[in-house]
Amino acid sequence: MKTGPKKQVGVIGAGACGEYVKNLAEKVGREIARRGAVLICGGLGGVMEAAACGAKRGGGVTLGVLPGSRREDANPWIDVAVLSGLGHARNALIAQSADALIAVDGEYGTLSEIALGLKMGKPVIVLESRWEIEGVHRAKTPEEAVELAFRLMKEI
Amino acid sequence: MKTGPKKQVGVIGAGACGEYVKNLAEKVGREIARRGAVLICGGLGGVMEAAACGAKRGGGVTLGVLPGSRREDANPWIDVAVLSGLGHARNALIAQSADALIAVDGEYGTLSEIALGLKMGKPVIVLESRWEIEGVHRAKTPEEAVELAFRLMKEI
Amino acid sequence: MKTGPKKQVGVIGAGACGEYVKNLAEKVGREIARRGAVLICGGLGGVMEAAACGAKRGGGVTLGVLPGSRREDANPWIDVAVLSGLGHARNALIAQSADALIAVDGEYGTLSEIALGLKMGKPVIVLESRWEIEGVHRAKTPEEAVELAFRLMKEI
Amino acid sequence: MKTGPKKQVGVIGAGACGEYVKNLAEKVGREIARRGAVLICGGLGGVMEAAACGAKRGGGVTLGVLPGSRREDANPWIDVAVLSGLGHARNALIAQSADALIAVDGEYGTLSEIALGLKMGKPVIVLESRWEIEGVHRAKTPEEAVELAFRLMKEI
Repeated sequence: MKTGPKKQVGVIGAGACGEYVKNLAEKVGREIARRGAVLICGGLGGVMEAAACGAKRGGGVTLGVLPGSRREDANPWIDVAVLSGLGHARNALIAQSADALIAVDGEYGTLSEIALGLKMGKPVIVLESRWEIEGVHRAKTPEEAVELAFRLMKEI
Repeated sequence: MKTGPKKQVGVIGAGACGEYVKNLAEKVGREIARRGAVLICGGLGGVMEAAACGAKRGGGVTLGVLPGSRREDANPWIDVAVLSGLGHARNALIAQSADALIAVDGEYGTLSEIALGLKMGKPVIVLESRWEIEGVHRAKTPEEAVELAFRLMKEI
Repeated sequence: MKTGPKKQVGVIGAGACGEYVKNLAEKVGREIARRGAVLICGGLGGVMEAAACGAKRGGGVTLGVLPGSRREDANPWIDVAVLSGLGHARNALIAQSADALIAVDGEYGTLSEIALGLKMGKPVIVLESRWEIEGVHRAKTPEEAVELAFRLMKEI
Repeated sequence: MKTGPKKQVGVIGAGACGEYVKNLAEKVGREIARRGAVLICGGLGGVMEAAACGAKRGGGVTLGVLPGSRREDANPWIDVAVLSGLGHARNALIAQSADALIAVDGEYGTLSEIALGLKMGKPVIVLESRWEIEGVHRAKTPEEAVELAFRLMKEI
């Protein structure tokens, strides 16, 4: 039963997004689950929901770290919900709890998580990112993003 | 696959405890898992470890919300670890994320979680508690504590 | 200009209270200011407002650590406002930032701060407290409470 | 005595910096104080210390929101210290508590604060910034940065 900790991969992105980005996030989530890691996200809609949906379709476990305090704000693919009540400060918890972060597109909230992840020394992989931030790894496909994340994560 | 959110029950208590208290916590964790809820705890030793161990033996899922930022501080029965980095402020996240709280004995940290749970309007059940706090529910056995928690939780 | 850090004393209590308790809190705040310490409180009404009002009347400086993110929620006696956005988790910041804590009456939120203060090894003085918690110091008057706080605080 | 809330301006930047950046931060802090606003910063060294020093030289009040829990980590120019114990999550409190943010150069932590400030709808002014982030206002001198901050802040 005691199998050692699973790796935890964070997927970050905006709470609302178009079909193209949603599709990328879903594939990222599915691939994370297929490789046996827990998916961490912010628990809301958009990229967070698509990634969690993908992870569940891939047979994985999903954690949502929500900004608020209501369970009903979690998207329906969240297995375990942390109702942080911390507002934007919860972004730091996602970055800290992930062994690697994958950003899919994203807005200012995502940028804050990218920056926090880099500050904490985590591997940060970006897909379709508009910003030029030194230290991030650019991927061209969801598969490449997850491949990079697993290659760059520290052994636990 | 989409089965609706599971209930989440928090088990709180000291990071170091004797065999008698450890045994109570283990039974509480096992019973929570047996009834299909996610176990939430602080992720460290003592009551937290015993409850998580019980939950895994009962076939459940365990969430640890740790005060620090190191995965290796989690006890070996934690499936999903939130590395909050928040120190004592993480106590509020445990209270907020739980649909009900069960305190097994406990020190000052536990008392803060009992108080926060009551402030948030959560059912709080205590086993072997030294304090007289209005609003808590006293149980005499682990089974009674979990029975009370499930009876008093709001429907999600 | 550089005069070394001032001591910081936290006054904790409910957000709504009667005249008797308000009067005690006002005297506590005034005495803290008279002795040259910064007053820390939760920044809202009731005991927090009365203590801050007393501190300003005593010529002191007041810090409010608010649970929300709106400046207009601060009571009018707050000089410096931290808009934590952390909800109940902000209680830990008040306990951590104070060199000593004085509780005036209080509800569950106050109890959580008393417990956190004790957990952090801070001197905790209570006036008109309903709970029996080992480790707190009981005072009979505002003057005695502040006298005790200053005697028990660690030298910075 | 009751004069209405003062404006609060955050100065953000790295905990270690060269003389040129330090000099800019000191001038920013002094100008903020001269205009009657409270200076908010992270309370540590580098840009934070230089800005706080400038604010004290300008006759102002300084608030430091520290990541840790030790008063002695605050730089000597901090009047009021919030010992958050939140680690990197404290960055959100600085952004939330400021009516406007001025970034002087900076590393990843600063970038996270810029992003959080923009997410929260605060005016964000940058001096010597290496990143191209839509929505920030670039200033060429400390005086211009503070001038912009005051022009763009919402009336309280």
